[in-house]
Amino acid sequence: MAAVRLDEIVARLGGRLIGDAGRSIRQVATLERAGPDEISFLANPKYQEKLLATRAGAVILPESSASACPAACIVSDEPYLYFARVAQWLNPVNAPAAGIHPTASVESPIPDSVSIGAGVRIGPGARIGARSRIGPGCVIGSGVSLGDDSLLHANVTIYDGCHIGVRAIIHSGVVIGADGFGFAREQRGSWVKIPQIGSVVIGDDVEIGANTTIDRGALDDTVIEDGVKLDNQIQVGHNVRIGAHSALAGCVGIAGSARLGSRCTVGGGAVILGHLNIADDVNISAATLVTKSIPKAGTYSGAVPAQDHAAWLKNFAHLRHLDSMADRIRTLEAQLARLTGIQPTSSHNAEKES
Amino acid sequence: MAAVRLDEIVARLGGRLIGDAGRSIRQVATLERAGPDEISFLANPKYQEKLLATRAGAVILPESSASACPAACIVSDEPYLYFARVAQWLNPVNAPAAGIHPTASVESPIPDSVSIGAGVRIGPGARIGARSRIGPGCVIGSGVSLGDDSLLHANVTIYDGCHIGVRAIIHSGVVIGADGFGFAREQRGSWVKIPQIGSVVIGDDVEIGANTTIDRGALDDTVIEDGVKLDNQIQVGHNVRIGAHSALAGCVGIAGSARLGSRCTVGGGAVILGHLNIADDVNISAATLVTKSIPKAGTYSGAVPAQDHAAWLKNFAHLRHLDSMADRIRTLEAQLARLTGIQPTSSHNAEKES
Amino acid sequence: MAAVRLDEIVARLGGRLIGDAGRSIRQVATLERAGPDEISFLANPKYQEKLLATRAGAVILPESSASACPAACIVSDEPYLYFARVAQWLNPVNAPAAGIHPTASVESPIPDSVSIGAGVRIGPGARIGARSRIGPGCVIGSGVSLGDDSLLHANVTIYDGCHIGVRAIIHSGVVIGADGFGFAREQRGSWVKIPQIGSVVIGDDVEIGANTTIDRGALDDTVIEDGVKLDNQIQVGHNVRIGAHSALAGCVGIAGSARLGSRCTVGGGAVILGHLNIADDVNISAATLVTKSIPKAGTYSGAVPAQDHAAWLKNFAHLRHLDSMADRIRTLEAQLARLTGIQPTSSHNAEKES
Repeated sequence: MAAVRLDEIVARLGGRLIGDAGRSIRQVATLERAGPDEISFLANPKYQEKLLATRAGAVILPESSASACPAACIVSDEPYLYFARVAQWLNPVNAPAAGIHPTASVESPIPDSVSIGAGVRIGPGARIGARSRIGPGCVIGSGVSLGDDSLLHANVTIYDGCHIGVRAIIHSGVVIGADGFGFAREQRGSWVKIPQIGSVVIGDDVEIGANTTIDRGALDDTVIEDGVKLDNQIQVGHNVRIGAHSALAGCVGIAGSARLGSRCTVGGGAVILGHLNIADDVNISAATLVTKSIPKAGTYSGAVPAQDHAAWLKNFAHLRHLDSMADRIRTLEAQLARLTGIQPTSSHNAEKES
Repeated sequence: MAAVRLDEIVARLGGRLIGDAGRSIRQVATLERAGPDEISFLANPKYQEKLLATRAGAVILPESSASACPAACIVSDEPYLYFARVAQWLNPVNAPAAGIHPTASVESPIPDSVSIGAGVRIGPGARIGARSRIGPGCVIGSGVSLGDDSLLHANVTIYDGCHIGVRAIIHSGVVIGADGFGFAREQRGSWVKIPQIGSVVIGDDVEIGANTTIDRGALDDTVIEDGVKLDNQIQVGHNVRIGAHSALAGCVGIAGSARLGSRCTVGGGAVILGHLNIADDVNISAATLVTKSIPKAGTYSGAVPAQDHAAWLKNFAHLRHLDSMADRIRTLEAQLARLTGIQPTSSHNAEKES
Repeated sequence: MAAVRLDEIVARLGGRLIGDAGRSIRQVATLERAGPDEISFLANPKYQEKLLATRAGAVILPESSASACPAACIVSDEPYLYFARVAQWLNPVNAPAAGIHPTASVESPIPDSVSIGAGVRIGPGARIGARSRIGPGCVIGSGVSLGDDSLLHANVTIYDGCHIGVRAIIHSGVVIGADGFGFAREQRGSWVKIPQIGSVVIGDDVEIGANTTIDRGALDDTVIEDGVKLDNQIQVGHNVRIGAHSALAGCVGIAGSARLGSRCTVGGGAVILGHLNIADDVNISAATLVTKSIPKAGTYSGAVPAQDHAAWLKNFAHLRHLDSMADRIRTLEAQLARLTGIQPTSSHNAEKES
């Protein structure tokens, strides 16, 4: 990778440059590790001490930290976003040469600009977008469409008939379009499979993390809108819809037919039950279970944090008796009211209402 | 797919037909989306409004909703189950042609009726049942047996010596027979591997969802009985036994040596700890942790639902102090008893007992 | 497998032999299942009854149980560890013949002692250690280094530039080195990818369970130290560090930049949030969420156990009102104090402090 000068960076990406405009930058790095030909960033003023000690050649930072910077700096209102763009510039994706590996089994026409890795299998009737790269071992079913400039890492599986937009990044082990979990129960308890005849429709600019699974719809489609980012090991059930630009951290599970709005964030390990509607701009904290629809933007939490084991044993035993504790409080209030003539406070009634 | 007439459906599957017996049906669909050559179903009377507005050619429904149906209908006591059978009829599985793909590496005899996809690897000593279909990229170890009419989607891995019954459906990314997590600890803290010499034995009519993992037994076998349905990303530890016709939703984890009875259901994200015994006909709610054996059929729950973040912060801080709250209630009761001569109610004692 | 005599076992592994020194042992088994040519173990005195009934040819047990053993026995202070060593001896790993399968696509030099399975893809610049075995369908990126005597089961994916030590055991479906989940947000809500230019560095003697994912670092590396054991379906975020000899059970999630000390254990389904520091020798219980750093060795828990559904409904409804319950207790204490002149107990103050 060739170096870029700070003045070239500012010319392309904006921001105000303070210091040596001709300094060459080869890579991005953390404030602690960066050397003189690397650029770092400061987004959170609480790391100001690291700024003071940095040996970075330049730092991207907000106005308020500029005077404290021991190196050249680029002032930006959004230092982290600016850093992302510089990092992309300095780290272009290493595209393999176009062409079809001789061990691939391809039954659809492939544009010349596409790279198909070793052992890839593409069924008939698939449409692979220009300049896409399909890593070794991927299996792409018949009738799949994949947009231009998409990147499938090794060992991705896409079932028949799924649609994926442009600039997708799909990591290894992802499975798109497997059957949703749909069965009708017979009286003796056995299950009869409901054929899953919907598909998966994924918009543009979607990234999907390793080993994430997205099931096809039962009757209608499962839909992932533009710009959605899914981390690793997420499970998306059939007929789910995830709104544009939502970002879900690792190990999230979304049960069938749930709908998540646009620009939502979901913390790692959270679970969203089926058939719920989550509004736009909802943030769900890590390890939180969502059991009801959320009609209003905001942050929602339900996680139970850890304690040392002895304290946990002592405290959590009472979880099984909260109702009895509430009864006893009510009894005490009634007894005391009789003694004093003072009525219980309104918080009592508040509890009864909700 | 050819169409079938309503009278053909009733002739094969039973039920009472009301309306145009000669109507041709090509596909199943939801009440909202179905058109005149599609059949839908109504299982839950709360969706009756959708029934009134449907443009479906026919609807499968219970007696109680028949009079409200604007289209032809088939009356059934179990509309959803009936629908499943119709859906299967209209959507036969699209079997690839029998034969072994030239890029496959097969070291066992394969019946002529079997389809082996691109890049499949089958070790020596495996027995592959008639009419089975092995998707591209699957790896089947030596000595594996797979029953007739089974379907392995792409990129499934089955370790040496595992046994799978007839009519299995196994989705992409599934790993069957990896080593269980068994180690003995040395005094200095390092771990010595316990060879996992058991196997995995899977009954007939089992479906396994994408990226689910089922570990082989340590000494004895891990057993999945007939008719079990596993959703995606489930983890089944070594020596687990799952009873017939149990159905587990996505992301469930079952730790080693747990035993789940027959006809159980487990909601998404639930965790069952090791060495527990769960009776037949137990339903475990989503996101519930099971820490003790459950000797009795019924529904068991433990999930903590989400609140808005501010309410959660306020309420859940008290979780760390439940024991102190209980003490304070006891103290209040004692003080009040001294004042009034009234003894605390029996709920107090109930808490102490359990 | 040839049999070994008890005196041969004791000669190699130590311990005190009681009984028939010449007895031949062919395999390990449980106390219930073992026959006369098998050896079992008793580690926990609560299974003493099984010892009395065993038909095993020999049992490894602690001194205290020796007199009760109906068969030959080997007395050891650490029976389970001893058993692990015997089991390894009797079950040597079945190494495939060295050589490169003709369907593999290998662009790096491979030592003669290495076995490369069908359909494997190895990029340029990779270093594969002596006597390593790469199962069918594995994809190993360019510049990867893999230590001697490592075993990759089928369908493992290792991205470019990752480093793995000697004697690694990596199970099917594992993905090492996929991009961490790093994005900067634009004001309109869309996400800009931060290139993940760190790598994954894995020490010696590490075992990684099926479908586990370990992301590459954003700027620095993700590090798994020597002797770490990871079960199935674990998610390790970017820049995480896991200290030597820690063992994590299935379905654990560790968010980005968390650091786990040495010799820690983490129970199944636990979640550790990002940027936390967990000390050495910390044990985290199953299904526990860790939201704060843990600076001190010990056991930490937070799991909420299941109840029958009706009890759960009644009790857990109060979780939303704990703050109100606490208020009411405070009010009662104040009222009673006014009546009696007795001040609330110290537990009240304890709660306020923490």
